[in-house]
Amino acid sequence: MSSLAGRISRKIDKSIFGYGMITPGDRILIGISGGKDSATLLHQLGMKQHGFSIPFTAEALHVRTEYVEIEDRHRLVELCDSVGVPLHEKEISVSGRLKEGRRMNCHWCSTQRRTELLRFADEHGFHRIALGHHMDDILETFLMNLTRKGEISTMLPCLRYDRYPQWVIRPLAWVTETETDAYAREIGYEAVRCRCGFDELSHRKVIRRALEAIIAAEGEGARERMMQALHNVEPRYMPVFQPRDGDGGSSDGV
Amino acid sequence: MSSLAGRISRKIDKSIFGYGMITPGDRILIGISGGKDSATLLHQLGMKQHGFSIPFTAEALHVRTEYVEIEDRHRLVELCDSVGVPLHEKEISVSGRLKEGRRMNCHWCSTQRRTELLRFADEHGFHRIALGHHMDDILETFLMNLTRKGEISTMLPCLRYDRYPQWVIRPLAWVTETETDAYAREIGYEAVRCRCGFDELSHRKVIRRALEAIIAAEGEGARERMMQALHNVEPRYMPVFQPRDGDGGSSDGV
Repeated sequence: MSSLAGRISRKIDKSIFGYGMITPGDRILIGISGGKDSATLLHQLGMKQHGFSIPFTAEALHVRTEYVEIEDRHRLVELCDSVGVPLHEKEISVSGRLKEGRRMNCHWCSTQRRTELLRFADEHGFHRIALGHHMDDILETFLMNLTRKGEISTMLPCLRYDRYPQWVIRPLAWVTETETDAYAREIGYEAVRCRCGFDELSHRKVIRRALEAIIAAEGEGARERMMQALHNVEPRYMPVFQPRDGDGGSSDGV
Repeated sequence: MSSLAGRISRKIDKSIFGYGMITPGDRILIGISGGKDSATLLHQLGMKQHGFSIPFTAEALHVRTEYVEIEDRHRLVELCDSVGVPLHEKEISVSGRLKEGRRMNCHWCSTQRRTELLRFADEHGFHRIALGHHMDDILETFLMNLTRKGEISTMLPCLRYDRYPQWVIRPLAWVTETETDAYAREIGYEAVRCRCGFDELSHRKVIRRALEAIIAAEGEGARERMMQALHNVEPRYMPVFQPRDGDGGSSDGV
């Protein structure tokens, strides 16, 4: 195993054990878009299912939309074959599901694909849905929620839905985008490209540039410290509005 | 009262009432460095002490260091006179207090001046120490703690020390630096400049630039949403490491 593969594997273990992502016997459904992130996840979990300390099995579902070239399909097939992960496929038209008058966008597309994953997992008895989001996605979501929603929150490494029995897990939570990029190259996987032409949200771009500017100046360690910070809220040093009837309770006041 | 003065005054009220900063009869000691932020604070609190719904009185302490020109002193005197705030002064040598082998820096200087403020407040029976930190300072501290300390925390608008009976209050918590800048100009106050030559920490500069890039792209509203976010931690959407002995507690697992 290369040093990069080993590093990514250890980071996945950190997530699996750190967040209690898997229990013995779990059947995991990996959502594979064809991009380098989900390819990294699939390749790593595919290898890990043989002899991992918590027994689990992995299968993959590719929800194909009208924006992915059908000629790219063989790359997914080869990737799954190479690590013994059965590949399921489903075709949907994400633009066909748009409500009248609404324009196509990345959020709608990903929501539709997520719904299909959940439905498939439910119908076929999977316990976990594994998604390829990585540390940069989690940090960007944090910064977007901060500046857009006025809220300190993020995308969870391990999320239990109210409406579905399956958990959504993100085993790449501590893996960086630089690492998934390099790993996809290392295993010779050429990413299936989305050809929708709808560009990534400009808000995410702004946030990504700000994040990269901080990392460039502060060094790579800052990325991991930010991720660590999400687990480390210090309530004694967070501002709190007082109830209106109180006077602050000062023992020094008259 | 100008519209800017009114807006700043309302934001100070938001902090005073929102955080329960003042109780009736409080004697407030304003730390005045001579910069535009503490000048804004002094001018506003000076006016507010006449007829405010919570009776309080304000006095000021300027801790003079070897890095401030003595010729600038008259500006502080005039500012305090203009709003009826008694001015106290104390001289210290911040470089003289350095431990052997340590180099001078902004953090050391501000810690020394803070200590003098606390000491003076203690000796003269003040209940509150008011500092001129504004919203941008609070947001920058938040982002610095995030990227440097790996912690979600910030500078508190209202801080009670363990070792001192006085509270430190920051009535400008919801006022932006743009506003203190404009206000100092409006009241004709020319800031006393620190001539230390030790530049602001580069880390703070990086963070400030990243913050300004986000605000430039997202609009001024993003600044206030970030401030709001500091009061709005959503624990259900923050990652938590599980205890090592647990298995995640899945009811779906075998």
